Amino acid sequence: MNCTKCKTKAVIKIPRHHAAFCKVSFTNFVHDQVTRAIKSEKMFGRGDRILVAVSGGKDSLALWDILLKLGYKADGFYVNLGIGGYSERSYSMVRKFAEAVAPLGPALHTHTVEQEEGAGIKELAHMVHRPTCSTCGTIKRYQFNRAAVERDYDVMATGHNLDDEAARLLGNVLHWQEDYLEKQGPTLPASVEGFAKKVRPLYRLSERELAAYCVLNKIEYIIDECPMAQGARTLLYKEVLNRLETESPGTKQYFYWGFLEKQRRKQSSSDAMSEKDQTLLRRCGTCGQPTTSEVCSYCKLMARARREVAG
Amino acid sequence: MNCTKCKTKAVIKIPRHHAAFCKVSFTNFVHDQVTRAIKSEKMFGRGDRILVAVSGGKDSLALWDILLKLGYKADGFYVNLGIGGYSERSYSMVRKFAEAVAPLGPALHTHTVEQEEGAGIKELAHMVHRPTCSTCGTIKRYQFNRAAVERDYDVMATGHNLDDEAARLLGNVLHWQEDYLEKQGPTLPASVEGFAKKVRPLYRLSERELAAYCVLNKIEYIIDECPMAQGARTLLYKEVLNRLETESPGTKQYFYWGFLEKQRRKQSSSDAMSEKDQTLLRRCGTCGQPTTSEVCSYCKLMARARREVAG
Repeated sequence: MNCTKCKTKAVIKIPRHHAAFCKVSFTNFVHDQVTRAIKSEKMFGRGDRILVAVSGGKDSLALWDILLKLGYKADGFYVNLGIGGYSERSYSMVRKFAEAVAPLGPALHTHTVEQEEGAGIKELAHMVHRPTCSTCGTIKRYQFNRAAVERDYDVMATGHNLDDEAARLLGNVLHWQEDYLEKQGPTLPASVEGFAKKVRPLYRLSERELAAYCVLNKIEYIIDECPMAQGARTLLYKEVLNRLETESPGTKQYFYWGFLEKQRRKQSSSDAMSEKDQTLLRRCGTCGQPTTSEVCSYCKLMARARREVAG
Repeated sequence: MNCTKCKTKAVIKIPRHHAAFCKVSFTNFVHDQVTRAIKSEKMFGRGDRILVAVSGGKDSLALWDILLKLGYKADGFYVNLGIGGYSERSYSMVRKFAEAVAPLGPALHTHTVEQEEGAGIKELAHMVHRPTCSTCGTIKRYQFNRAAVERDYDVMATGHNLDDEAARLLGNVLHWQEDYLEKQGPTLPASVEGFAKKVRPLYRLSERELAAYCVLNKIEYIIDECPMAQGARTLLYKEVLNRLETESPGTKQYFYWGFLEKQRRKQSSSDAMSEKDQTLLRRCGTCGQPTTSEVCSYCKLMARARREVAG
């Protein structure tokens, strides 16, 4: 099997593109896919300051690496969730990467849940009687947005890949979650003051491709899934999509990209989003961040945790 | 496990309804689901003459049986495809059922492809260089519609069940086939003269439930799938949906019914269909049936077959 581009020995096959690549051509392919994502979805420009959410996993470290190699100004933001050895290992992966790129300029910001919210994510979830993953989501979304806004970044970037997006889309479609369907896209504009613009530059690349990118580019990452358990539902959707992808390469891509195309046709989904949300959003009475309720979900969660500790 | 309705011993569990039923309650449940389908989708009324497409399989024979037991005026229409032993066995199942109900009035009409189109379905497909399933679809749709219109039936009913509809919807959604998505519903009105109204009264019942209905009500049916091979793609979608259903009973139902609900909300899809189609449809230059081209796909297919024989 030879490289589709340069005819040397290929190291990876990409059935959905009917292609195979050597290490160099594969790295170029990945960079090219990200460049196309950034351009076609109007994510950011050369002058923009980007904050990348890094977890220590393959996707977010690959994203940071790619953005830097493409010449963008990208810093990292890591949330230490306080999940014992898992958080230690993931933090060490992030630090290692950050230290290697530090001489070139990029900084790493860290938020430590045990310090700021007063307990690890597992304990917090227990206090507020909510599933760990949703508690974690609330805190990460909140702190990530806050960091981007307070530190004056132009845009927040996350490492969601094609598999993540296709699985999320399948879940939303199976339940016809129209509100979520409307909002699902690789670029969410800064709809109101206090809400950072959010982008997902890896939506054109699969999980497998990103793992290969890290291995081939010697980026060390934490392989284990979070022990608090990834939503089993998402894993099931990924399994099912992988089954379809095996039978018919390109299924995920057609499914997710086709959806984006459809959204684009019936007017930019982001316009619809921002109009709708702008009328709904106000400032949280407690912290001042944008929210659709009187008090934002982060402040509600923290208030509940405090009552639990007090009572 | 006891019957949810009458507390006697249950013979079947319906996880998606959190129910279990004895034979009598299950039969009532099936009849009730069909009644709800007929009413909510405005399929037909007591006075209407219904033509049921029967293949000899569980779905279509169950449908005919249910409609008769619910007191509707329903005749059968069987297309003999000329697939050797398979067609013989399926025809004998249909005849057996038809003979049993004949004293009550219902008639069975038969169309024989070998006689009318001049060759069995396999040979015809070969002549026109098209896959057997699509050739078969063209002929069945055409002859079924023609029989309904010429014999003055008010509505044509087919045995498509929840699994069929959910699998079709999944395929359409994975490829965002918007035209097909618009037209997918359990009731397609008689949009123009020459096009019979089409309904799918079994869309609230699963494959498994219909098989159980036949077994419990002693309806003999042909178990084997058509040897010309059911579209492998549909089987794959069914497999994947079954995987999701096992993990989360009700998935298929929420998926398909939720889709119908969504369609209803954004204006009746059938209105959209009929408006759009009415502007597009004209009479076939050859046979006079409604079509969007100058010559309908059935006449094109038959012309091609004739050329093949001549040439």
